[in-house]
Amino acid sequence: MLYLNDDTICALSTAPGTAAIAVIRISGKEAFMMAEAIFSKTLQDKRSHTTHFGQIRNDEHIIDEVLISIFKGPASYTGEDTVEIACHGSPYIQQEILKLLIAYGCRMATAGEYSLRAFANGKMDLSQAEAVADLIASNSAASHTMAMHQMKGGFSKEIGILREKLIDFASLIELELDFAEEDVEFADRTALSSLLNEAITLIDRLIHSFSVGNVLKNGIPVAIVGAPNAGKSTLLNALLNEERAIVSNIAGTTRDAIEDEMIIDGIAFRFIDTAGIRDTTDIIENLGIEKTYEKARQARIILYLTDLTDPHWSDKAVKGIALLRELEPREEKEIIVLANKMDEVSGSVDTQQIDARLLSISAKNGQGIEELRSLLSEKVNLGELHSGQVIVTNTRHYEALLHARTALNHVNTGLNDRISGDLVAMDIRQALHHLGSITGQITTEDLLGSIFSRFCIGK
Amino acid sequence: MLYLNDDTICALSTAPGTAAIAVIRISGKEAFMMAEAIFSKTLQDKRSHTTHFGQIRNDEHIIDEVLISIFKGPASYTGEDTVEIACHGSPYIQQEILKLLIAYGCRMATAGEYSLRAFANGKMDLSQAEAVADLIASNSAASHTMAMHQMKGGFSKEIGILREKLIDFASLIELELDFAEEDVEFADRTALSSLLNEAITLIDRLIHSFSVGNVLKNGIPVAIVGAPNAGKSTLLNALLNEERAIVSNIAGTTRDAIEDEMIIDGIAFRFIDTAGIRDTTDIIENLGIEKTYEKARQARIILYLTDLTDPHWSDKAVKGIALLRELEPREEKEIIVLANKMDEVSGSVDTQQIDARLLSISAKNGQGIEELRSLLSEKVNLGELHSGQVIVTNTRHYEALLHARTALNHVNTGLNDRISGDLVAMDIRQALHHLGSITGQITTEDLLGSIFSRFCIGK
Repeated sequence: MLYLNDDTICALSTAPGTAAIAVIRISGKEAFMMAEAIFSKTLQDKRSHTTHFGQIRNDEHIIDEVLISIFKGPASYTGEDTVEIACHGSPYIQQEILKLLIAYGCRMATAGEYSLRAFANGKMDLSQAEAVADLIASNSAASHTMAMHQMKGGFSKEIGILREKLIDFASLIELELDFAEEDVEFADRTALSSLLNEAITLIDRLIHSFSVGNVLKNGIPVAIVGAPNAGKSTLLNALLNEERAIVSNIAGTTRDAIEDEMIIDGIAFRFIDTAGIRDTTDIIENLGIEKTYEKARQARIILYLTDLTDPHWSDKAVKGIALLRELEPREEKEIIVLANKMDEVSGSVDTQQIDARLLSISAKNGQGIEELRSLLSEKVNLGELHSGQVIVTNTRHYEALLHARTALNHVNTGLNDRISGDLVAMDIRQALHHLGSITGQITTEDLLGSIFSRFCIGK
Repeated sequence: MLYLNDDTICALSTAPGTAAIAVIRISGKEAFMMAEAIFSKTLQDKRSHTTHFGQIRNDEHIIDEVLISIFKGPASYTGEDTVEIACHGSPYIQQEILKLLIAYGCRMATAGEYSLRAFANGKMDLSQAEAVADLIASNSAASHTMAMHQMKGGFSKEIGILREKLIDFASLIELELDFAEEDVEFADRTALSSLLNEAITLIDRLIHSFSVGNVLKNGIPVAIVGAPNAGKSTLLNALLNEERAIVSNIAGTTRDAIEDEMIIDGIAFRFIDTAGIRDTTDIIENLGIEKTYEKARQARIILYLTDLTDPHWSDKAVKGIALLRELEPREEKEIIVLANKMDEVSGSVDTQQIDARLLSISAKNGQGIEELRSLLSEKVNLGELHSGQVIVTNTRHYEALLHARTALNHVNTGLNDRISGDLVAMDIRQALHHLGSITGQITTEDLLGSIFSRFCIGK
């Protein structure tokens, strides 16, 4: 294959930095030879999937005492001969070992090159390889479940079923083409229609699932709007601090810096930068500003924060909610009114006028924050996720499905207009092409380059 | 042993963060059982040093596809049964696997607990365990070579020889004690003296080596002094940028942020914070300030930066050098005069008056920077490092050696004053005690706690 180099590659596969151990991975036809050149023991005579203790040496100079694991192709991640060196986790040692391997002719792997080789060697299809990157990036139970399902081939199977239906359809059409001169309609048009409809139903479900899959993967966008003195930062801190306390229970793992993102019940919520809104002094007066609209439009959930100590809070809230309700797309937005500073007012809150879900809280002392967390998690419909149905999470797949859908529309129109079978067949082939690009049956070097360059180095 | 828990521990052993893979290590008598509880295959029936592909599961929920390596005690790092799980490098997955292990009764390892167990199980002595931490922290060829030599037992061997000499000495003294009532001097006092002198020579060499070992391990302290307009920051940047260009040659490994530290020819140079000096407008006028003195005193090498565009540069330099020469400890300081801004003056530089090594440079355009690098590396005497002789690098070891030396002084005095053999024997035991604390023959729970708490989690 054009895109597959047959040289031997190496890279650090664990996270950079100082740690107890680090793993350097070598893959390619000379992996064992190169590892032997720097290791104190022979490896080629050893069985696959065994681990060997010894020294990495540069001539007589000992660089490290390491554990080397060997995997004989095709029984490895890449499908090639693979060696994993578990060395002491000193950046200096990592660098010295890599330098030594390069001196023996190894090449530093590019981002995703191990996975590219796994794909090229038939160890996984393209959507599965993409799922590996998603799995590594997953930071919530929801994104993890979707990536794992895709990596295990759930999505590929669905695409396979779709392709089969279309191929059946195409063979009926082609049968008709063979008898075209005889001017008979060999294929039963009703059967054709029914097959096509099945395919369209399937593809539509996949396309539709993307709106859920995309937000579950990237985090549900949440906007907090309200006047500056309403307590927006206090609220955000109250939510985030609670989560930090939860995640810090397990020592030894450091979560990547949580920047205005939190996980509630396995779902990531991402607080979109509402600086445009936060800067305004009055949500009612300023919601008209286009920039502010734009920010709030991206949100799936809007937390509308009101200040109970403001005597006009409920009038303002009524107007604010009305304006927020006009944001597009309307059907996908949830508005939650948070009546803040409940600790500073006495008596009960009059919620009669408010035509939206209202929760009284005190961002300052944490009252109602737990209820807010539950409310946020309730707002996300996880029906599809838990049913085990395939959910599309990848923009590339989504776009390919849209293209395939367009082609199928043409097929449908053609069928209704009774246009010639060979034109219909062309549209079918177009749809098959787009579906094939998802799993990688049809691919280009450019496409592969753009997919795998987004992977980590070492994967 | 008191300090050894017999439960089963787990921790992330690779660096935290997102990467291709991460390794979680389990050690203890239930390591296989606990790994089996979450893994899709049996492990206890497998051979040691083999690797197995399978799934980590929480009931029916797949958490990851992993490679598990098993090591049957005592053939493992800790000497106990050990399991290493190589999972996908997602912090979420790392956390889920650790949570699952904890649910099955595993305990999160404390810092250095694997190495503590290795020590307790006789896999290495205490100075070797400490060398593991040094090896991981090593960032230059020099610190790496010293740590590797210590880890391989070079230092322990030397201490062993020293202890043997003292034990021989003690047995001669004790022989004398046995015959004390008969008032004979059984032990030949000349032989005793000679044995003692050998031990003292050895211990003195080790003590002396610390002054080299300590700076090689922690970096040679270098101070840049000079007037603010002399170009100190420009010089530092010129030196550091050159190094950054060198270290960035190997992609895929990230050096920890280099903060005013650089490696030249395998030796680390650490630029000590001379803010006190940098802030002064005139080195001559301000060197008298105690704070400034203090900073410059820590330096092994002082780069005295002069400004060639100042017409009085050489007069000022002569005075400045005289003041710097008075800094204690005098014998261990190197002063290099850098005549900066050579690009801004014409003609040759008159160096007649300057009684110190002088180098003309231009920090701005990089002239002379390469020569300065060579000069810095020349100034470090690596004779001891390259001869393969043992170099003491650890402050704890240094202090133990000093205590042992004090005890031997008492022995020497006692011998000369012909005091009673049992008092001499007491001092010998004192010396042996301190030497034993280096390798861990003699130890306390507190000492072990303070040593291993400085290790990484997972080592």
